[in-house]
Amino acid sequence: MTVRLKENERLDELQRNGYQIIQNPEKFCFGMDAVLLTGFARAKEGDRLLDLGTGTGIIPLLMEAKYHCGYLAGLEIQAESADMAARSVLLNDLQDKIEIIAGDIKEADSFFPSASFDCITCNPPYMPGQHGLVNPSTPKAIARHEILCTFEDVARQAAKLLKPGGHFFLVHRPFRLAEIMVTLVRHRLEPKRLQLVYPYTDREPNMVLLESVRGGKAGMKAEKPLIVYQEPGVYTAEIGEVYGF
Amino acid sequence: MTVRLKENERLDELQRNGYQIIQNPEKFCFGMDAVLLTGFARAKEGDRLLDLGTGTGIIPLLMEAKYHCGYLAGLEIQAESADMAARSVLLNDLQDKIEIIAGDIKEADSFFPSASFDCITCNPPYMPGQHGLVNPSTPKAIARHEILCTFEDVARQAAKLLKPGGHFFLVHRPFRLAEIMVTLVRHRLEPKRLQLVYPYTDREPNMVLLESVRGGKAGMKAEKPLIVYQEPGVYTAEIGEVYGF
Repeated sequence: MTVRLKENERLDELQRNGYQIIQNPEKFCFGMDAVLLTGFARAKEGDRLLDLGTGTGIIPLLMEAKYHCGYLAGLEIQAESADMAARSVLLNDLQDKIEIIAGDIKEADSFFPSASFDCITCNPPYMPGQHGLVNPSTPKAIARHEILCTFEDVARQAAKLLKPGGHFFLVHRPFRLAEIMVTLVRHRLEPKRLQLVYPYTDREPNMVLLESVRGGKAGMKAEKPLIVYQEPGVYTAEIGEVYGF
Repeated sequence: MTVRLKENERLDELQRNGYQIIQNPEKFCFGMDAVLLTGFARAKEGDRLLDLGTGTGIIPLLMEAKYHCGYLAGLEIQAESADMAARSVLLNDLQDKIEIIAGDIKEADSFFPSASFDCITCNPPYMPGQHGLVNPSTPKAIARHEILCTFEDVARQAAKLLKPGGHFFLVHRPFRLAEIMVTLVRHRLEPKRLQLVYPYTDREPNMVLLESVRGGKAGMKAEKPLIVYQEPGVYTAEIGEVYGF
């Protein structure tokens, strides 16, 4: 499938199935967090998966490549990002499996039936409120700050759209861990598995990966530390594996 | 001060101020968790500190040695452990600073005025319920399982006895982290600092250290990983430091 690139857009290789992704570095490019989330998440062949706030569609693309889900939907409120995501789906000839929908996370339940997904993934905005932003309407600001939706919105929609026993995979910042867990439990998305991501073995973690199960019982597993660099500029073997090197 | 040892009791050096502790290996000896909690906790000179479920008094002894608190109380329901703790206090000539009280955590507020402590520490029973125990009345079972008190009881009492802004330091098992955070937040003990303890850099954590602040604002810090062994039988430098080697 031939797909046109617009001004400032570029094509990046995903190191999986030969897949490529369209991004615009002047707007927002996916980060390590999205990739690590697809390494942490689990899905079964044929699963129905929804990615809330999919941006340029990195998570559905990688989840399809890694787990062969049956149907993947990506919901994205920013029209330009959703458009890039939709063109990346065509570019990789995945239009029969991945659907990109331009829409608001807060209204996700108007696009999909209740309890219709096996897995939901989300790499949400990390920072509360606008936090003194100069320009809260830029794509980067919307992707990073809770301007258009809060974590509460994300959890409410995930709880509604997951099947009972379905899995919600999340990447976030450790500084919000307590609030996140409280919010998840309030929505009966029981935290079941957690992994902290440390840049180096002697540094504070800068990401937390979390799996919750809708209606799950209390009791969770904490995973071994995920260390990113073995020395400056050199990824650990685990990170290389997640990236498909 | 001369203190008599009873049958099967032994004296252990604490590597701090020349302090010693009386323990009975047939009952229950303190573990690494208690020691790591005193390395993670912070107290200011002159602080009033309470240790809930103090066992043989290891935490008040080490907190006095490390932080020179003004007054330290240890509450312990098991008469034999409380008796060993009280004799250790005498042995180290700390009877003017440390008070050991034989009593129930669930009734801690009958022994102390509300909002009277700067810091509360707790190394509680980790395992829920009796969990198929053969003999739930042994000292080890009571120290390890929530037979005589639950985490809910601990949090309720800590919230009552801490001054506003006072600190609650806790060691627990990661598998209960979500439940612990939800319980703490419900009692307005806001989680502010967390550290996972990993036996090795490539193993799952087996302890979590957590600091909460009574009435604190949302938002927490996660610390660098605390790794116990650099190779089998060899502690990392950080662990050596906590132990005072």
